[in-house]
Amino acid sequence: MTSQPAPAARISIELGDRSYDILIGSGLLGQADAYEGLPASTSALIVTNTTVAPLYLAQLKQALAGRHAQLHEVVLPDGEAFKTWETLNLVFDALLGHGCDRKTVVYALGGGVVGDMTGFAAAAYMRGVPFVQVPTTLLAQVDSSVGGKTAINHPLGKNMIGAFYQPQRVICDLGTLATLPERELSAGLAEIIKYGPIADTAFLDWIEAHMAGLRRREVDLLAHAVRRSCEIKAHVVGVDERESGLRAILNFGHTFGHAIEAGLGYGEWLHGEAVGCGMVMAARLSQRLGLVDAAWVARLTTLIAAAGLPVVAPVLDVADNAGRYLALMRVDKKAEAGEIKFVLIDGPGQATVRGAPDALVREVIDASCAVA
Amino acid sequence: MTSQPAPAARISIELGDRSYDILIGSGLLGQADAYEGLPASTSALIVTNTTVAPLYLAQLKQALAGRHAQLHEVVLPDGEAFKTWETLNLVFDALLGHGCDRKTVVYALGGGVVGDMTGFAAAAYMRGVPFVQVPTTLLAQVDSSVGGKTAINHPLGKNMIGAFYQPQRVICDLGTLATLPERELSAGLAEIIKYGPIADTAFLDWIEAHMAGLRRREVDLLAHAVRRSCEIKAHVVGVDERESGLRAILNFGHTFGHAIEAGLGYGEWLHGEAVGCGMVMAARLSQRLGLVDAAWVARLTTLIAAAGLPVVAPVLDVADNAGRYLALMRVDKKAEAGEIKFVLIDGPGQATVRGAPDALVREVIDASCAVA
Repeated sequence: MTSQPAPAARISIELGDRSYDILIGSGLLGQADAYEGLPASTSALIVTNTTVAPLYLAQLKQALAGRHAQLHEVVLPDGEAFKTWETLNLVFDALLGHGCDRKTVVYALGGGVVGDMTGFAAAAYMRGVPFVQVPTTLLAQVDSSVGGKTAINHPLGKNMIGAFYQPQRVICDLGTLATLPERELSAGLAEIIKYGPIADTAFLDWIEAHMAGLRRREVDLLAHAVRRSCEIKAHVVGVDERESGLRAILNFGHTFGHAIEAGLGYGEWLHGEAVGCGMVMAARLSQRLGLVDAAWVARLTTLIAAAGLPVVAPVLDVADNAGRYLALMRVDKKAEAGEIKFVLIDGPGQATVRGAPDALVREVIDASCAVA
Repeated sequence: MTSQPAPAARISIELGDRSYDILIGSGLLGQADAYEGLPASTSALIVTNTTVAPLYLAQLKQALAGRHAQLHEVVLPDGEAFKTWETLNLVFDALLGHGCDRKTVVYALGGGVVGDMTGFAAAAYMRGVPFVQVPTTLLAQVDSSVGGKTAINHPLGKNMIGAFYQPQRVICDLGTLATLPERELSAGLAEIIKYGPIADTAFLDWIEAHMAGLRRREVDLLAHAVRRSCEIKAHVVGVDERESGLRAILNFGHTFGHAIEAGLGYGEWLHGEAVGCGMVMAARLSQRLGLVDAAWVARLTTLIAAAGLPVVAPVLDVADNAGRYLALMRVDKKAEAGEIKFVLIDGPGQATVRGAPDALVREVIDASCAVA
């Protein structure tokens, strides 16, 4: 970290009786007062993974020691490949094994995979127990921990089994970003960049201007990026919690991206890497539909590359690459009666969700892959 | 059936934007107009089991043929022992394998196990698709299909993993009760009897007066029993959808009952049989706490026996039977910080949820089991 920590910020997600706050600041994770006002309970379970546990589990346990008489933990294997029912069951085994009840608070300490799985476990255990997100990756802080989407993967599709289930609070400790591997930082930048094209051109300008500093992890820049991302997400989720309309725009880059993740095998590319490349592809599709011009696509592609993200898509099938992409995208949750719906850009800071002719999509895939 | 079919009745569950109707009548399952007004979709999936499929699947498919261009089915193994993640995954495999999307309507055709699993699958698939309950057992018609409790079992506890997720409609075809095995009919009567002590003494009197006719499956009697049970359940669920208070009274007999089911191994006793015996035990505990008198307990026990249900509890552990019951009951969803909460009767048609001293509970278990 090269500059002074920013003071903690607080952003509210307004969802009636499911409303909650996002706290953003340096060192929050280990501060007992970050958890004040959350449900008290005799027992609590911290869910984390083998990578994060040695770094932050002790800090979190210390901060929570005064809140729960029985503080249990379960340490999962790390990675998207483990976002499965088998791993989720380890959480249920821990909850039942420790005699956790309906009041037990569950804490998710880790990145997007830990947060998504813990959230779904909390949603389903005894039909719902309270949970708190303590995201330790940039991607989780700016996107996956906020908004209540929880899920596990199915071999045939990403995030296919899950729940809309809101946390009681999201505690974003910017200090945890210091230990993040370079690839994970870039993956988080993909979701930050996403908010520009779909909602805020001024933010896109700001990201461009500060990309070098963000990659150097200047804490005031990270603080602003996390805060602005959460503000945009809070607004969108507040309008459309269960994705009956607007919320789908948050999936910019995700239709192509999910196909990359599933096609390569979960965990081969990071989710953020696939989304980065997917945004390039969605931008190109927008251009072919006459919604944006080539210069805009080039600008976005340059920014995504500058974030350290891949902009050349992988070949998923040497015999019928475009066909494989299309087949994988047809199981996307936005698809309707077999028609793939894409999040496309149709103006500055403005997204639209619509279908596109297969022939155009094939052209984009051919033009985006390393080998056609 | 020994009398004329009653005309279809309609009961509304009032839950704001999650409100829905229960239709009750003979022959409804195969009538296309019973499904009118439900969400239209290109594809639909019927979930049923190996016992029900040969009896009613063709009828349901015919009734739905005009509503869905693609009508898929998945036939699960039958029984509580299969209320597991492995079986649930067969539903997800079918949904994804057939390319089902967020608009796909899922129909649960069967008893409580099919309904609970299908409801949870619908709640979790793509974070929620619409589903319709078509209960074919008495127990499912009077209890499990109504109110939105969905779940699967975990080896350590019954219904531990699930969701509150309301159906779009419940279609109770009284005609299906004609093919119900005797044991299943009695199991359904247990949940009907339940509504008397907790909510409606006049209904309890009526059940007593008509038990012989109910067991002879007189359709006007069954129609009244199903309707009155659904009315009481609709009221309770409308007041407290997510069981933060009142709804727990619907679990009368279930704390002891779940221990019997888990202790014997799921499927050994039917759920309704365990609840029947569990009500006797809960009544005895109420008596020992001075809430009801011995004559009332004897009356309820006689009625439960008259329904063809067991009133002598099984021994779960020859070495420490009461200890085994207590251990199993401590993982009940109503337990808090290790204290078991019982639904007890404390006046005519009135239930209360409270703890009880272990010593008293042990006395009840010892007095209720075949061999102490």
